[in-house]
Amino acid sequence: MTTQKKETWSPLFTQATAQDFQAFHSCIDQDKRIALYDVAGSQAHAKMLTASGVLSIEENTLIQEGLNAIAQEMQNGTFEWKEEFEDVHMNVEQRLVQLIGDAGKKLHTARSRNDQVATDIRLYTRNELDALQAELKVLIGVIADLASDHADTIMPGFTHLQIAQPITFGHHMLAYAEMFLRDLERVGQARSRLNYSPLGAAALAGTGFPIQPELTAELLGFDGVCRNSLDAVSDRDYVADVCHAGALIMAHLSRLSEEIIFWCTPLVGFVELGDQFCTGSSIMPQKKNPDLAELLRGKAARVQGNLTFAVGLMKSQPMAFNKDQQESKPPLTDTLENVRAAVTVTSQMIPTIKANKERMYEAASLGYATATDLADYLVRKGLPFRDAHHAVAAMVRYANENKVQHLSELPLDKLKTFSLLIEQDVYQVLTLEGSVNSRNHTNGTAPEQVMKAVKKVKNLL
Amino acid sequence: MTTQKKETWSPLFTQATAQDFQAFHSCIDQDKRIALYDVAGSQAHAKMLTASGVLSIEENTLIQEGLNAIAQEMQNGTFEWKEEFEDVHMNVEQRLVQLIGDAGKKLHTARSRNDQVATDIRLYTRNELDALQAELKVLIGVIADLASDHADTIMPGFTHLQIAQPITFGHHMLAYAEMFLRDLERVGQARSRLNYSPLGAAALAGTGFPIQPELTAELLGFDGVCRNSLDAVSDRDYVADVCHAGALIMAHLSRLSEEIIFWCTPLVGFVELGDQFCTGSSIMPQKKNPDLAELLRGKAARVQGNLTFAVGLMKSQPMAFNKDQQESKPPLTDTLENVRAAVTVTSQMIPTIKANKERMYEAASLGYATATDLADYLVRKGLPFRDAHHAVAAMVRYANENKVQHLSELPLDKLKTFSLLIEQDVYQVLTLEGSVNSRNHTNGTAPEQVMKAVKKVKNLL
Amino acid sequence: MTTQKKETWSPLFTQATAQDFQAFHSCIDQDKRIALYDVAGSQAHAKMLTASGVLSIEENTLIQEGLNAIAQEMQNGTFEWKEEFEDVHMNVEQRLVQLIGDAGKKLHTARSRNDQVATDIRLYTRNELDALQAELKVLIGVIADLASDHADTIMPGFTHLQIAQPITFGHHMLAYAEMFLRDLERVGQARSRLNYSPLGAAALAGTGFPIQPELTAELLGFDGVCRNSLDAVSDRDYVADVCHAGALIMAHLSRLSEEIIFWCTPLVGFVELGDQFCTGSSIMPQKKNPDLAELLRGKAARVQGNLTFAVGLMKSQPMAFNKDQQESKPPLTDTLENVRAAVTVTSQMIPTIKANKERMYEAASLGYATATDLADYLVRKGLPFRDAHHAVAAMVRYANENKVQHLSELPLDKLKTFSLLIEQDVYQVLTLEGSVNSRNHTNGTAPEQVMKAVKKVKNLL
Amino acid sequence: MTTQKKETWSPLFTQATAQDFQAFHSCIDQDKRIALYDVAGSQAHAKMLTASGVLSIEENTLIQEGLNAIAQEMQNGTFEWKEEFEDVHMNVEQRLVQLIGDAGKKLHTARSRNDQVATDIRLYTRNELDALQAELKVLIGVIADLASDHADTIMPGFTHLQIAQPITFGHHMLAYAEMFLRDLERVGQARSRLNYSPLGAAALAGTGFPIQPELTAELLGFDGVCRNSLDAVSDRDYVADVCHAGALIMAHLSRLSEEIIFWCTPLVGFVELGDQFCTGSSIMPQKKNPDLAELLRGKAARVQGNLTFAVGLMKSQPMAFNKDQQESKPPLTDTLENVRAAVTVTSQMIPTIKANKERMYEAASLGYATATDLADYLVRKGLPFRDAHHAVAAMVRYANENKVQHLSELPLDKLKTFSLLIEQDVYQVLTLEGSVNSRNHTNGTAPEQVMKAVKKVKNLL
Repeated sequence: MTTQKKETWSPLFTQATAQDFQAFHSCIDQDKRIALYDVAGSQAHAKMLTASGVLSIEENTLIQEGLNAIAQEMQNGTFEWKEEFEDVHMNVEQRLVQLIGDAGKKLHTARSRNDQVATDIRLYTRNELDALQAELKVLIGVIADLASDHADTIMPGFTHLQIAQPITFGHHMLAYAEMFLRDLERVGQARSRLNYSPLGAAALAGTGFPIQPELTAELLGFDGVCRNSLDAVSDRDYVADVCHAGALIMAHLSRLSEEIIFWCTPLVGFVELGDQFCTGSSIMPQKKNPDLAELLRGKAARVQGNLTFAVGLMKSQPMAFNKDQQESKPPLTDTLENVRAAVTVTSQMIPTIKANKERMYEAASLGYATATDLADYLVRKGLPFRDAHHAVAAMVRYANENKVQHLSELPLDKLKTFSLLIEQDVYQVLTLEGSVNSRNHTNGTAPEQVMKAVKKVKNLL
Repeated sequence: MTTQKKETWSPLFTQATAQDFQAFHSCIDQDKRIALYDVAGSQAHAKMLTASGVLSIEENTLIQEGLNAIAQEMQNGTFEWKEEFEDVHMNVEQRLVQLIGDAGKKLHTARSRNDQVATDIRLYTRNELDALQAELKVLIGVIADLASDHADTIMPGFTHLQIAQPITFGHHMLAYAEMFLRDLERVGQARSRLNYSPLGAAALAGTGFPIQPELTAELLGFDGVCRNSLDAVSDRDYVADVCHAGALIMAHLSRLSEEIIFWCTPLVGFVELGDQFCTGSSIMPQKKNPDLAELLRGKAARVQGNLTFAVGLMKSQPMAFNKDQQESKPPLTDTLENVRAAVTVTSQMIPTIKANKERMYEAASLGYATATDLADYLVRKGLPFRDAHHAVAAMVRYANENKVQHLSELPLDKLKTFSLLIEQDVYQVLTLEGSVNSRNHTNGTAPEQVMKAVKKVKNLL
Repeated sequence: MTTQKKETWSPLFTQATAQDFQAFHSCIDQDKRIALYDVAGSQAHAKMLTASGVLSIEENTLIQEGLNAIAQEMQNGTFEWKEEFEDVHMNVEQRLVQLIGDAGKKLHTARSRNDQVATDIRLYTRNELDALQAELKVLIGVIADLASDHADTIMPGFTHLQIAQPITFGHHMLAYAEMFLRDLERVGQARSRLNYSPLGAAALAGTGFPIQPELTAELLGFDGVCRNSLDAVSDRDYVADVCHAGALIMAHLSRLSEEIIFWCTPLVGFVELGDQFCTGSSIMPQKKNPDLAELLRGKAARVQGNLTFAVGLMKSQPMAFNKDQQESKPPLTDTLENVRAAVTVTSQMIPTIKANKERMYEAASLGYATATDLADYLVRKGLPFRDAHHAVAAMVRYANENKVQHLSELPLDKLKTFSLLIEQDVYQVLTLEGSVNSRNHTNGTAPEQVMKAVKKVKNLL
Repeated sequence: MTTQKKETWSPLFTQATAQDFQAFHSCIDQDKRIALYDVAGSQAHAKMLTASGVLSIEENTLIQEGLNAIAQEMQNGTFEWKEEFEDVHMNVEQRLVQLIGDAGKKLHTARSRNDQVATDIRLYTRNELDALQAELKVLIGVIADLASDHADTIMPGFTHLQIAQPITFGHHMLAYAEMFLRDLERVGQARSRLNYSPLGAAALAGTGFPIQPELTAELLGFDGVCRNSLDAVSDRDYVADVCHAGALIMAHLSRLSEEIIFWCTPLVGFVELGDQFCTGSSIMPQKKNPDLAELLRGKAARVQGNLTFAVGLMKSQPMAFNKDQQESKPPLTDTLENVRAAVTVTSQMIPTIKANKERMYEAASLGYATATDLADYLVRKGLPFRDAHHAVAAMVRYANENKVQHLSELPLDKLKTFSLLIEQDVYQVLTLEGSVNSRNHTNGTAPEQVMKAVKKVKNLL
C-alpha cells in the first residue's frame, strides 16, 4: 500500500506516503505547464543570491548552466519526470544536483516552495494573458472587418426575438466588438494586478538572508514586489480574476453563437458558415451543423464552472498556505487553454460568414418594423409621444387583423382615420433605408455611423 | 489550415474541417473512457437487429467477433485511435469494417450517434456509480469502527467553535456516517433514474426499422426503455444528478477535513494522522501537514464547479441534440474520478487516526461545558427553564471574572447565592461523565447510544 | 452605536449588540415564513414533555392555549414582531410568557434553538415540497393534454437547430413531460430524505431529560427521528437537495422557454401565446413579446445561483452548529417560492399555446427532412447502411446545388443515377406522413405512439 | 384570472395580463431602489431634448418641476406606487402626466424603456460602488491601525494550520490590507467600466430625433457615451463585475473570519472580540459566539451564488434586450447591499479585537518554530541548504521523540552530534525575537517592516 521511497522531508517521517494518496495529490501533469517558468525563476533567484553574496560567482555559473541544460531537456522532451519527487520543483532540484553536484543543493537557500510556486504560476499566467490579449485583438479586428463589409446591409433588429426595428448587420456585429473590448480591458487589468513578485516571502514570513526582492522582481519582468509575505504565498485572487474574465469572454462568445445558430437555421437563413467550422450527421445526410457555435456555448458553461471552483476554493481558507491551493491550478489552466482556443477558432470562423442579404432585408420588412418611425413622425408633427404611440398601435392592430403585412400598403385616407396629422410624406418614413439612415448619431445604426465606429474600434487596438 | 481527410458526412461538404477547430472539438481522450461500453452497446444492438430480422445470423456472428476483437485490442492497449475519425463511434466502426468488411457497414442501421453515445455514457456512469456506492460503504464502515473504538472517549462538543457540551468522539464520528448514508441514498437514486435505455431513439425521432428497444434494454441491464425519443437523446439530467451527489459527498468530506485539520494543529492536538497521509515541508523540517484533508477541501470546490458546469450547460438548450452536450462529459468524468478517489483515500486515512484522549478530556472540561447540565438540574428542582438559564449565566460570569475555571470548584455556599435550590448533589451533575451518560436517548451522545448507533449503521450497509 | 436592550443570554455580556450588526444578522423577515411551524413544533414538544412527566397537564393546557392564541395572532396579522428579540423563537417565547406567565418559561426545557429551528425549517420545506409536487402534476397534465391535441400535428424535429426529421408536435411536448416526471421524483426523494425529526438533539448532544423523540416525530408527521444529534442540528443537505431539484426544474422550463421564444419569432411562427402571458413595447407598438418565457430563462439562472449558494455554504463547516447556517434560509425560500410560481404560471400559459399547423408542416418539408428515410429505404433494398448514407448525401448535394427543394421533385431516372436500387415506390417514403407513421415503436414519434404515451403519462400522475 | 386594466401597450392586446404572471414578473420592489435615478435620468433627458429643440423651454420647465415634485414625494414616502403600471418608469410617467398634463406625454420622445432602465441601473450602481469604495478604505484603515498596535506582537505563523515560523500579529493583519487594496482596485475598475451613458440607444437602434447623447452623458456625470446602441441596451457585464468584486471581498472577509473564529476558540485563545459582535446561547449560558465572523462566512457563499446567477443569466442570450435581463437586478442589489453592510460591520468589529499576547507568544514557541532559522544558520556556516535542512529535520525528530519541546533546551554537545558546524552562537538564532527581527526586508515580518508597511498602506488610501 505504500511506496518505499525516501521523502524530501524525511527523516521526521517513519512511514512512506500511501500510494493512493500519492496518486490523488500528484500534480506533475499540471506542473509541466510551469516547468520552464520554474527554471527561469530559479535562474533569477540564483543571480540575486549571487549579487547578495550568498552564492559565489562560480556556484552561480554552475547553477545557470545546469538550469539551462534542464530547460533544454524540457524543450527536447528528454527531461525525465519522476512521480516520486512529487512536484516540478523537486524534480528540477534533484536533476540539478545530479548535473552539478553540491552547488545545486544551495539553490533553495532563502526561498521556499511556497514563494517559488507562486512565482511560477504568476509567470505562466502572465504569459498566457499576453497571448490571450493578442488573440482578442485579432477577434475584434475580424469583427470590425465584417462590420465594415456590411455597414449598409439591412437586417431586422430583435428584442425578445421579435422583430423590432431595422438595423444594419455591421452595427449588430459591432456590439460584439464592444463586448470584447471590455474583455480586453478586463484581461489587461487582471494581468497588471498579478504582476508582482512573491519571491522573498519564503515559506510565509520572509527570510533572514540578505535578499533583494526588488532585483528578482526586475529580472523576471514583474512590476514590483508583493508587499506582504503572507499574502504573497497565499494569494490566488488572480485565478478568480482570470476565470471571471474568461467566463465573460465565453458568455459573449455564447451570445454570438446563439445568434449564429439562429441565423443558420433554414427557417431564418440569414448566414451560412464555412464548411470548415461545421459538421454533418452520421444518419441525416442533408445536415450542416454549426457545431463550433454550439460547442462555444457549452464551453461557456465550462468556464463558469471554473469560476465557481476558483472562488469557492479560497472561501474560508486560513492563512497562509494550505494544500487546498494546489487545486487552484486546474481552473486556471483549463480556463486559459479553453478560452484562448475559443477566441482563436472564432476569429477563424467569422471571416467565413456569408450573409444572405435578401433574406435579411425581407425579414426586416416583416412585423411592422418601422412602426416606431411612424410614431416619431407623428411626434414631429406635434403629437405628444405617448399619444402617437397609441395611434400607431391602433394602426398596427388594424393592419394585422386585415392581413396587411406592411403599413406602407395602407392608403393615405385609411391612415388618416388614425391621425389627421398623417400626410403623403409618411411613406418615406416607412422605408427600411429611411429608418436606418435616420439613426445617425453616436452609437446609432446608420451606415455612416457604422463606418465611423469601425474606425474607432480599429484605433483602439 | 485545414486537413484533407474525407469526412464521414461527405460529400455534402466541399471543405475539410479547420485544424484548430478539429483540435478544439476533439473528444477522443474523453471518449476512451466509454470505448468498451460503446462496443458492448453495439453488440447488444446487433443482436437485437438479428432478432428483428434486419441482420442475418452470419452478419451478426461476424459483427460480434469483430467487436470482441476490438474490445481485446482496447484492453491490450493496441487499438489505434485516429484523431481524424472524430470520436469513439467512428473509430470503432471504421476498425470493424477493416476487420470484417461490408457487414460492419450495416451495424449503424436503425440507430444514430445520438442514441448510441447516450447509451454509452449511461452504461459508463452506471458502472462508476456502482463502484462509488461500494466505496461509500467501506467509508461508512471504517467510520463506524472508529466510533465503536471511541464510544466513551469524551471530547468537547463545539458550536460556533466554542466549547458547548461534552460529547463522545464516537458520537461525533457517527454524524459523518449519517451524512454518507444520505449520500449513498442519493447516489443510488441517481443510478436508478438514469438506468433506462436510449436505444431506439436514433437521431431524435425513432426509426422505421422493426426494432425491439425492450430487447436491447434487457441485454444491457437497463431497467427499461426511455419513454420518449427526443428526451432520450437530449437528456443529461443524470450528469447534474451525479455532480450534485458528488458535490455533497465532497462537502461532507470537506467538513470532516476541516475538523481533522483543526484537531491536528498543535494548539488543539486531539488526533494524530498516519504519516502515510501527511507531507512535510521543504524548509520547515518540523512540520507534519494534514495534506490529504486540505486537498479534500480543495476538491470540494472542484466538484462544486462541475455542478455549476453541468446545470449551466443544459439551461436554455433547445431540443433535441446540440453539440453543447459534448461538454457534458468533462464534468461527469471529472466528478466521478475525483469523488471516488477521495472516498477511497479517506477510507484508508481514517483507520490511521490516533485520538489523544487526555487532550480531548482536558479540553472538554474547559469553558464551563456542563453549564447546561446545571441549568437542567435547576429545572428538575422546579425552576422554569428560562430562569434557570439566567441563574447559571450569572454563575458562569462570576466564575469567569474570578478566574475559576470549573464550576465544580465553587463552594456550595457560593453556588447557593445564585439559587437556593442548589444542594450537595449538584457536584455529580458537573462531571463530564455524568453529563455524557445522561444523554441516553435515540440520537443522544451517551456511550450506550453510540454502540447502538454503530450497530444500526452497520445493519444499513 | 449600540442598543440598550437586555439580551436573552445576558448577564454574561456587558455590552449590547452593535446596531449595524443587529441589522446585519436579523432574520425576522425570513423567519415569518416558519412562524406557524415554530408554534406547531412547540405544541408537539410540550405534549411530549407532558407525556414524559416534565410538564404538568395544567402547564401543558396553558401552553397549548397560549400557542393557539399566538398562531391566531399570526394568521390575523396582529402578532407584534420585535426586532430586539432577534428571531422567531424568542418572539414566540416572550409573547407566550406574556400571555400565560411562568409556564411559558418551561417550554424551552429539553430543547435548544438549534433543534427547534431545524425542525421548523424541515416542516416548512416539507409543506412547500408537497405543494410543488401538486403543481408539477398539474403542469405534466396540461402538457399531456396539449400533446394529445397534437398527436398527429407534423413539425420539423431539430438537432443543432437544423431541420433533421419530421416529428409530431405532441411527441415533442411529451419530451417535457418526461423531464418534469423526473423532477417530480427528485422532489419526492428530497422530501422523503428530510422528513426526519431533529427534536431531542437539543444544542448538539441530546438532553438529560427523559424525552421521547419518537413521540414528537410522530406528532409532527415525520417518518422517524434523526439518528445522530450532531447531524440533526447541523445538517442542511436538504437545502442543497431542494436547490438542485429546483435548478433542474428551472433548467427544463428554460429549455421549453427557449423553444417557445423561437417558435414565436415571426420568422418561425409555429405558435402564438395567449396575450395574458405576453407584454408589449413602450416604443414599438407592433411587438408582442413572450415575456414569461424569457423571464423563466432568467429565473433558471437565479435558482442555479441559489444552488451554488447552498452547496458553498456547507463546504468546510465544522460541527456542529455555526451561524453560517442562518444563511441557509435565503436560498431555500427563494428557490421554493420562485420555482413554485414558475411552475404554476407555466401551467397556465401552456393551454393558451395556439399551434400554426400549416407553418409547422411547411417547415418540416424544408431541408430534405426525409433523407434518413431514403437511406433506410436503400438499406431495406440491401445496401449496407454506411453506403446508403453516402448515396443519399450525394443526392442531397445534387438537389441543393440545383435548387431542388424536395427530393421527391427529382425524377426517377435522376434518382437512379445515385443508386440503381431506387424504384417507383421511393416516392411514398419521401412523404412526411409516411416518415412519421413509420416510427411506430416505444418512444417513437408516430401518432399512435404519442396517444399511448399520453395515457402512460396520465397514469403516472 | 386576469386583471381588467388597460395596458400601456394596448390596444394591440385583447386580453389583460394573467394575475399570477403579473405577480411573477412584477419588479416594483426592486425598482424602488432606482426610482430617484430614474427621475434624474429623465431630467437630463428633457434638458437635452430642449437643447436639441425637440421640447420647448416651457415644456421643459413643466417637466423639471413635475419631476422635482415626484422626487420629493419619493423622499417623503408619499409617492403612490401602482402595481398595474408595471414598473418604475411607467409609474413616474403616469404621475407626471397627472401633475403637468400633455407635456408629460412628450418626455418619452427619443428614448425607450430599454435605454432608460440601463441608465438608471448604471447610475444606481455607480453610486453604490462609490459608497463601497469609501467603506473599504475605512476597513483598510482600521486594519492598518491594528497592525500598527501589534507591529511587534509575536504569534505563530501557520501553514497547513501547523505552526511554521514566528511572525508578528501586525504583519499577519497587513496581509488582509493587501487583499482589500486589490478589492478596492477591482471595485474602482468595475465602476469605471460601467460609467458610460446608454441614453440615445432607445429601444436598440438609436433614434431619428436630433439627439445629443454626449450632453445627457455629461449632465449625468458619465465618462462618455456607450459606443453601440445594441450593446448599450443589452450589456449587463457590470452586474457580473460587481458580483465578482463582491465575491472576492467576501472571500477575503471569510478568510479573516475563519481565523478569528479559530483565534476565539478557548483552545487557542489568541483574541477576544467585543461583546457587541458576539451572541450567546439560549441553552448554554457560558457561550460567547463570534457570530458576526460566522455570518460573514455564510454571506461569502451568498455572494458567490449571486455571481453564478449573474454570469449564467447572460450566457447564450441573443441580442438585444430580453426579459431575462429583468433578473439582473436581484444579484446586483443583493450583492451591493450585503457586501457593503459586511464591510461596514467588519470595520466596526476590528477595533474591538483584544489580542492575548501571552497566549500568542507561548504558541509561537511550540512546534520547533525556529527550525528554519537553525537550517539557515547552518547554511551561513557553509552547509548547502538541502543538507542543512536534513540535519535539522534529524534534530527535530530527536527532540520530538525525547519530549524536548524547544530546540534551545538541547545542550551544545548534543546539537553537535547533528552537525559539527553548530557553535554557542546558535542559541541566539533559536529565540522568537531573533527570528522575527531577522526577516527585515520588503514584505518580511520584522517589526520595522510592519511599521513601514503600515505607512505605505495609509499612503495608498
